[in-house]
Amino acid sequence: MTTGVRRRMAVEERRQQLIGVALELFSHRSPDEVSIDEIAAAAGISRPLVYHYFPGKLSLYEAALKRAAEDLATRFVEPREGPLGARLLRVMGRFFDFVDEHGPGFSALMRGGPAVSGTLGGEAASAANALIDSVRQAAYEQIVWHLGITAPPARLELVIRSWVSLAESTALIWLDGRRIPRAELELQLVHDFAALTAVSAAYDAEMAAILTRILADEPADGPFGELVGRLVALAPRQ
Amino acid sequence: MTTGVRRRMAVEERRQQLIGVALELFSHRSPDEVSIDEIAAAAGISRPLVYHYFPGKLSLYEAALKRAAEDLATRFVEPREGPLGARLLRVMGRFFDFVDEHGPGFSALMRGGPAVSGTLGGEAASAANALIDSVRQAAYEQIVWHLGITAPPARLELVIRSWVSLAESTALIWLDGRRIPRAELELQLVHDFAALTAVSAAYDAEMAAILTRILADEPADGPFGELVGRLVALAPRQ
Repeated sequence: MTTGVRRRMAVEERRQQLIGVALELFSHRSPDEVSIDEIAAAAGISRPLVYHYFPGKLSLYEAALKRAAEDLATRFVEPREGPLGARLLRVMGRFFDFVDEHGPGFSALMRGGPAVSGTLGGEAASAANALIDSVRQAAYEQIVWHLGITAPPARLELVIRSWVSLAESTALIWLDGRRIPRAELELQLVHDFAALTAVSAAYDAEMAAILTRILADEPADGPFGELVGRLVALAPRQ
Repeated sequence: MTTGVRRRMAVEERRQQLIGVALELFSHRSPDEVSIDEIAAAAGISRPLVYHYFPGKLSLYEAALKRAAEDLATRFVEPREGPLGARLLRVMGRFFDFVDEHGPGFSALMRGGPAVSGTLGGEAASAANALIDSVRQAAYEQIVWHLGITAPPARLELVIRSWVSLAESTALIWLDGRRIPRAELELQLVHDFAALTAVSAAYDAEMAAILTRILADEPADGPFGELVGRLVALAPRQ
């Protein structure tokens, strides 16, 4: 009995170790280019032993993806305290940490295509898409919670969800050459959120009320306040 | 010889007709749910005859996708005349026409996942992703051309490419329930483009110069001018 429990724990520990090793390899090269032999070598075990814990590369890839998705979702967690701009900026910092740590794997995953579906097949692509959607949904729900709104109107839902996709594409473009400092992009995305909200608020009273409430709590030297000052300085003299 | 030419023309015409029929079906239901039998019935030919022109559903799906991509790319074409805001608004109108016409097919394609890779396999997902990227690239190049810029700086490239992804996600969210009038979203996306450019310009002199040049040609009653007026009205009194 005790031996059985100990053995199951050992199996689970070994599985978790293999997932960690695989995730590390998938993070640095396109999953398409990582072989089971390499994973076995990196884990210091034999190829057949890898297959003992995971029936194939697909199941190992899915497990690694699941761990990465859970990791990313935890980085969205932020206490509901202080100005919204500063909270969002901290989350953007942790989001770019994640993107930085998993660069090539993140690109391959988000771009879909041969890197994921090539050797791993359509099933991997479907599993990956479902996980990506669950992370997007977690991001959406976090923001709604931070805004303190229980039933978001359609226009607010649109702003939040489309901003989440803007954050994804900004990170992907950053990874492709890293030509702009990431700290600049983290701040830019916070501003983009305010800007997209403001555009929606310009034509809708309900959104204008939400924007006014957000801005009321922002300090003049926070990211939102600073942006307003800079934009006013840019505006053509009328 | 003449008969040979005529036969090849007849084959090509029949292929084009089948592509049209398939695209129509793929536009209104997820490609996963459309069978070769249905395509044959809609085209008024037998199932074996469909296979005579296309070896399988995958090749027919790819041909339909290619036609849709070419169709979408033509809708981006706009003469380089008049204020930029008005040009972009006309393109957004044609983009939403396309999204409207191909609703369920567009959703299935852009969301990836089982609808595309399920029965069609990873190869379909890869081909679809390559086509989507080519359309994104066409959109990017059109905008650069309209801005009259030959070597876009990294920050402008980021703004344009991330705005293209914003337009995609806005269209997808619109399709999911159509809870916001599309005309409002077409105008909103034009404003979003100006807003994202303005955020980037707030922290970068090169982007500020580009924004100033764009705004100089905008009439006060154009989409950009109207937005500025509404935003100024929203801004907290200081």
